[in-house]
Amino acid sequence: MPLTEFQLIGRYFSPRARSAVLGVGDDAAILRPRRGRDLVVTTDMLVAGRHFAAEADPRLLGHKALAVNLSDVAAMGATPRWATLSVALPRVDARWIGAFSRGFLRLARRHGVELVGGDTTRGPLAICVQIVGDVPTGKALRRDGARIGDDVWVSGTLGDAAAVLAARRGRLPLTRPERTALARRLDAPQPRIALGERLRGIAHSAIDISDGLLADLGHICERSGVAAIIELGCVPCRRALARRLDHAAARAAVLAGGDDYELCFTAASSRRPALSSLGRRLRLRLTRIGCIVRARPGTACVQVIGPGGAPLNPGRTGYDHFG
Amino acid sequence: MPLTEFQLIGRYFSPRARSAVLGVGDDAAILRPRRGRDLVVTTDMLVAGRHFAAEADPRLLGHKALAVNLSDVAAMGATPRWATLSVALPRVDARWIGAFSRGFLRLARRHGVELVGGDTTRGPLAICVQIVGDVPTGKALRRDGARIGDDVWVSGTLGDAAAVLAARRGRLPLTRPERTALARRLDAPQPRIALGERLRGIAHSAIDISDGLLADLGHICERSGVAAIIELGCVPCRRALARRLDHAAARAAVLAGGDDYELCFTAASSRRPALSSLGRRLRLRLTRIGCIVRARPGTACVQVIGPGGAPLNPGRTGYDHFG
Repeated sequence: MPLTEFQLIGRYFSPRARSAVLGVGDDAAILRPRRGRDLVVTTDMLVAGRHFAAEADPRLLGHKALAVNLSDVAAMGATPRWATLSVALPRVDARWIGAFSRGFLRLARRHGVELVGGDTTRGPLAICVQIVGDVPTGKALRRDGARIGDDVWVSGTLGDAAAVLAARRGRLPLTRPERTALARRLDAPQPRIALGERLRGIAHSAIDISDGLLADLGHICERSGVAAIIELGCVPCRRALARRLDHAAARAAVLAGGDDYELCFTAASSRRPALSSLGRRLRLRLTRIGCIVRARPGTACVQVIGPGGAPLNPGRTGYDHFG
Repeated sequence: MPLTEFQLIGRYFSPRARSAVLGVGDDAAILRPRRGRDLVVTTDMLVAGRHFAAEADPRLLGHKALAVNLSDVAAMGATPRWATLSVALPRVDARWIGAFSRGFLRLARRHGVELVGGDTTRGPLAICVQIVGDVPTGKALRRDGARIGDDVWVSGTLGDAAAVLAARRGRLPLTRPERTALARRLDAPQPRIALGERLRGIAHSAIDISDGLLADLGHICERSGVAAIIELGCVPCRRALARRLDHAAARAAVLAGGDDYELCFTAASSRRPALSSLGRRLRLRLTRIGCIVRARPGTACVQVIGPGGAPLNPGRTGYDHFG
């Protein structure tokens, strides 16, 4: 006999409430915020055929649906605490849901996030996740805090996810081992929670790179009323991409590919030693790629300096979900 | 030129943050909870073809998508404060989005709810709303608080929305004026926020009726470890339905139709005067329909007494989104 909605929720999505006063199973969850903390709330919807293939591995999908939201929390310098999850599914498929919930709940446990509510319904495959995190009052990292003279930094390497997609579409020649290595970054991104938390009090502004470096750094610039200059040669990427940077598709992947879920942030140059030591402690590459300058009317808010020191015109500057 | 995602968000969904520290436009919203309050969080996903017709009036849809979530907050006795909204749309349609946002934001303003974040993407039409509300610490109305001897109450009238659907499918004969009057209840339900807030300290348990009276009262019973007996003749419904209660479709609409978004709650019999006076103050019908009794193994947790005092077997007991 097929499982009903209530049975599905009970079986796969009802871990016992720990930090929440009341978790899954009532009209709403009840959360008790800690004193002296602001809350941080974010939501993302993933749709089959747009953000993932309908036949994608449900365990990886469960991971990714949570990861992309955790990445937004990381970019605020916040600690993720509670999640809600809504899933529309073409049919009740206990195996699919079981695998999805394993991927989702495993990542949730790793970051101490509690699933406190949600909704399942029949419909074209779509997933909507919301996270509530917290952060000491007034200490969240925002997009609008970049200051002229700040360094621009990014974590990890960029372009991996976009390069795999480009290779699959025949637009970028990658070897099979290169593809396999990069695919993990596309399928199972790691949200930079620990980095975000430790950037509080160090970074002036932060964003996560989901739409592509140029677009996302552009958001920081617009919100802060500044501009940025970055050097292509400084943008960290894996060797598979670094050795192909003369290839337009590789350059586009690194600068504008998106789906990186690394953090881009700005900080005063006096913070360089603190950031070097933070990177070592987290075993996470932190790279200075440019600086924040005064905005000039009629000039792109993010300028890229190419190999010979000449400005690059990167063309496509980011990913628009309606584009 | 078609609008991009960012332009869409800017144009239609970026009211200035008032109570939130930071609203739409960063990686996440920043909320500052009041001291001494618990938070209440709920989410619902509405999918075209399942919860509404793809060609439905977008203004009414914007209202309803928010209303069904506010109804969950009302059932917790909480005050709704912040909302996030994700929409998947087959194509950028500024007229549709404009009308949708008007319906959504109008209801939000009426209840002092601030839209603080969201996501738009291309995909099969689906809407996901999340609400964060607050309530004095420890005072939320839960499903698990019903006590033996409690009265069972409902607000408003039941079955209206389901009756319209039944009539449209030719299963229930309604006159045209009757249909028109009831359709408003299907399309533009009114969440019972004020009632929920005032039930704190009066009701022992509460739920909103979205899946149908029997199913939702059943949830209270299961969670509270009790049973309920209700009288069909006491269940409040409009005259169009009351005069057709011998018709199976009318009875099913009232008892199990769902989509009512009224509150069902239990309270000690000593609270009858307080509840009568509350109903008068709110100009909202509050009706006592039965009582909470001891659970008996092998017996349905909600029993319905029919016209002659004999138990009814209502058959279908509720709505399952995967059913």
